[in-house]
Amino acid sequence: MSTVITNIATLVTNDPSLGDDSPLGLVRDAAVVIDGDRVVWTGASSRAPATDNRVDAEGRTVLPGFVDSHSHLVFAGDRTEEFNARMSGRPYGAGGIRTTVAATRAAGDGDLEANLTRLLAEALRQGTTTFETKSGYGLTVEDEARALRIAARHTDEVTYLGAHIVAPEYAGDPAAYVDLVTGEMLDACAPHARWIDVFCEKGAFDGDQARAVLTAGRAKGLHPRVHANQLSHGPGVQLAVELDAASADHCTHLTDADVDALANGDTVATLLPGAEFSTRAEWPDARRLLDAGVTVALSTDCNPGSSFTSSMPFCVALAVRDMGMTPDEAVWSATAGGAAALRRTDIGRLGPGARADLLLLDAPSHVHLAYRPGVPLAAGVWRRGVRVV
Amino acid sequence: MSTVITNIATLVTNDPSLGDDSPLGLVRDAAVVIDGDRVVWTGASSRAPATDNRVDAEGRTVLPGFVDSHSHLVFAGDRTEEFNARMSGRPYGAGGIRTTVAATRAAGDGDLEANLTRLLAEALRQGTTTFETKSGYGLTVEDEARALRIAARHTDEVTYLGAHIVAPEYAGDPAAYVDLVTGEMLDACAPHARWIDVFCEKGAFDGDQARAVLTAGRAKGLHPRVHANQLSHGPGVQLAVELDAASADHCTHLTDADVDALANGDTVATLLPGAEFSTRAEWPDARRLLDAGVTVALSTDCNPGSSFTSSMPFCVALAVRDMGMTPDEAVWSATAGGAAALRRTDIGRLGPGARADLLLLDAPSHVHLAYRPGVPLAAGVWRRGVRVV
Ligand SMILES: [Zn+2]
Ligand SMILES: [Zn+2]
Repeated sequence: MSTVITNIATLVTNDPSLGDDSPLGLVRDAAVVIDGDRVVWTGASSRAPATDNRVDAEGRTVLPGFVDSHSHLVFAGDRTEEFNARMSGRPYGAGGIRTTVAATRAAGDGDLEANLTRLLAEALRQGTTTFETKSGYGLTVEDEARALRIAARHTDEVTYLGAHIVAPEYAGDPAAYVDLVTGEMLDACAPHARWIDVFCEKGAFDGDQARAVLTAGRAKGLHPRVHANQLSHGPGVQLAVELDAASADHCTHLTDADVDALANGDTVATLLPGAEFSTRAEWPDARRLLDAGVTVALSTDCNPGSSFTSSMPFCVALAVRDMGMTPDEAVWSATAGGAAALRRTDIGRLGPGARADLLLLDAPSHVHLAYRPGVPLAAGVWRRGVRVV
Repeated sequence: MSTVITNIATLVTNDPSLGDDSPLGLVRDAAVVIDGDRVVWTGASSRAPATDNRVDAEGRTVLPGFVDSHSHLVFAGDRTEEFNARMSGRPYGAGGIRTTVAATRAAGDGDLEANLTRLLAEALRQGTTTFETKSGYGLTVEDEARALRIAARHTDEVTYLGAHIVAPEYAGDPAAYVDLVTGEMLDACAPHARWIDVFCEKGAFDGDQARAVLTAGRAKGLHPRVHANQLSHGPGVQLAVELDAASADHCTHLTDADVDALANGDTVATLLPGAEFSTRAEWPDARRLLDAGVTVALSTDCNPGSSFTSSMPFCVALAVRDMGMTPDEAVWSATAGGAAALRRTDIGRLGPGARADLLLLDAPSHVHLAYRPGVPLAAGVWRRGVRVV
C-alpha cells in the first residue's frame, strides 16, 4: 500500500542530487511517496504519482526522522535532587553515575523496560525515529547483559558500555575491572550488542584501558565508539580515529591534533549540547570542526544525570545558538549526521530506497527548529512507513 | 459541578500558608478541588472531599497555569530568512520591526486573528493559561486600534504599544509621531486596552518621549508598563518605577541605581530569556535582582523577530541555566511572577478562590521543567475550570 504526502512547503532530503545543491537537498512545494516501509519517490508536488492514500501537508515541512545516536536509556531512579542542588548552588553529598548504578541494579526488568519505553515514546512524539542506547548502569556481568537484552527489544543500535565507570566493587583494583569488561562481561554482552563504547576520561578509563576495551570488543565483532574529551583534553578522540570508531562523542576539549585526526579519519564527531546545557559546562565548538571538514552529528545524550532531555529539536536550537552551527548544518547533523555516526545509509535521508522515517513539522521550513526554540512542532511522525504520531 | 484531581505527587500552590514554607507553597501527595471556574480546596490527597468528578494525576505534578505577561502576537509575516541569516553569519539587508509592520498593515483582520489564535493554541498546549499581548506592528491610528480590538477578543490583558518604534512615515519627525501616539492614536486605542507600553531605548524612544507616552496613557485610564534597558543602559527602568509601572520588561542592562529603584518600588522586573537566546545577546542577571529583593517575572516576549518562542517551559529552563535562578524561583516567576507583573491576584496561584487555571505536568516535580529541558511535559491543562488539553 502506498501513500503520497503532498503540498510540502519544504522537503529536506539530505541528498543534493534530489533537491537544491545544498547538503540538505531541499525541494520546495514537494511530495514524498511511501510504499511499505520505504520511500519510493520524492519530487515536485505537481508531478507526484497517484497512490492509494494521500496526506496533505498543508504547506508544512517534512524532514527525515531524527537519528539520536547517543543515549543512556536503560536505567532506574531519579536524580532530580542532585540536579536541583547543582543548579541552586547547594552542596549535594552523593549523586553521580553510582547513584543510577545502584538504582538500576535494584530495579526489576519490567521497571527498566517501562522506563525505557516511556522515554522512547516521548522521543518519538518529538520526531526521533532511530535511537542508539547503551548499557553502563549495571557494571556486573548479569546487569550489563540484562540492560542490553532489554535495549535490543527496542532498537538495533545497542551499545555495550561496561566501561562507563569502574564498578564500585572494583574501586581499589581498576585493572581487574578492565579484565572483567574485556573478558566474562564481554562474552555475556557481545551477543546482544552492535557497538562497544568506553568513557575515556580522567576518573574513568585512561587511554591504555580504553584501547584494551575497544580492541577486545572488536575481536568479538563489536564496532567501537568512544566517549571522548568531554571534561578535559585526553587521548580519546585520537584513539577513536585510530581504531576507526564510528563516532567520538562529546568532543568538547580538543587540540588542533584532535581536530586534524577527525578531519583525516572516518570517525564522526557527535556533539551533545544537552550535557553542556544541564551541567553549565563550556560548549563544544562545532564551527571549528565543520570548518576543518569534520562530519558532525548532534544527539541528546539522554540520561538522568547530566542531560535528561529527549528532545532533538532542543539540541538543534542549542547547537545554533551556542555552538556556531547554522540552522541548515544543525538539521543535517541531527538527521544525516546521526546516521553517519551509526554508519547507516538507509536512514537520515529521504530518497528512493530510504527507510520511510519522516517527521512532519508544523512550520513552513526546517529553520523553525531553531527559530522557534522550545516549541513542540512535531505534527506527524512516520516510522518504517507507519504513521505513529 | 465539581472535580477533584487526586494523587498529585507535587502540588505548587504559590501560597506558603497552604503548603510548605517555601514561596512555592508545595504540598506533596496532594489534591485540588475545582468548582466552576474556581479552585475551592487544596490539601492532602487523603483528605480530599468527595466530588462529582475525579481525575487521577497518577503521581504527577500540578502547578498554576503559566502567566505569560509579555508577548507580541498580533502580527503577520515571517522573518525566518532574517533569523537564518543572523544565526548563519550572513548579511541581511532589510529586516527588523519595520518588516513586520509592513506585513501586518497589509494583512486582513481574519489573517491576523488566525495567526493569533494559532499561537495561543500552541501556548495553551504548553500550559500558558493567561497571556498579555500588545499592538505595535500597526503604527497608524487604524492599524493600532485594529490590533487591540483583535487581541481583546482573546485576552483581558491588552497593551497599547503605539510607541514600539517611530512609524516609518514619521522617521524625519519623531516628535510628531509622539504627538500622534499620545493624541489621536491614544483616543482610538484606549477603549480596547488595559495597559500602555513604550520601547524606551536608543533608536526607539528616549526618556522624555517615554514619559510623555506613559503619562498621556495614564490620563486616559491605561496603566503603564515599559520595555526598559534591553539593549543598553537607559532611563527606562527608573522611569517605570517612578510612574508605578506594573512591570519593567527586559532589564538586561542595569546599574546599581536601577536595581535599587526596582527593589524599593512596586514594579516587577520581567525577564525575557527567549530574546537573549534568539539574538545571542548577554543574559539578564536574575540572581542580582533576586538577591536585591526585586520581584521577578519570566515571559516569552513571543514575536517573529527577536524571540519566536511560545514556550514558558523553555524560558524556565534558560532562566535556570543562564540567569542564575534556582528551579523553584524560575517556576514561581513563570506563574506568580507573571501574575504580579499584571497586578493580578486571581491567577498564578492555586488556593481557594483562585481561578482554576492548572497545568498537569508529566513529571513527579516542578523541577523537571528545568531538569528536562525542551521536553513537552504538559499532560493536561485546565483553563477557568475547563479541561482544554
Ligand atoms: Zn553518554
Ligand atoms: Zn517586547
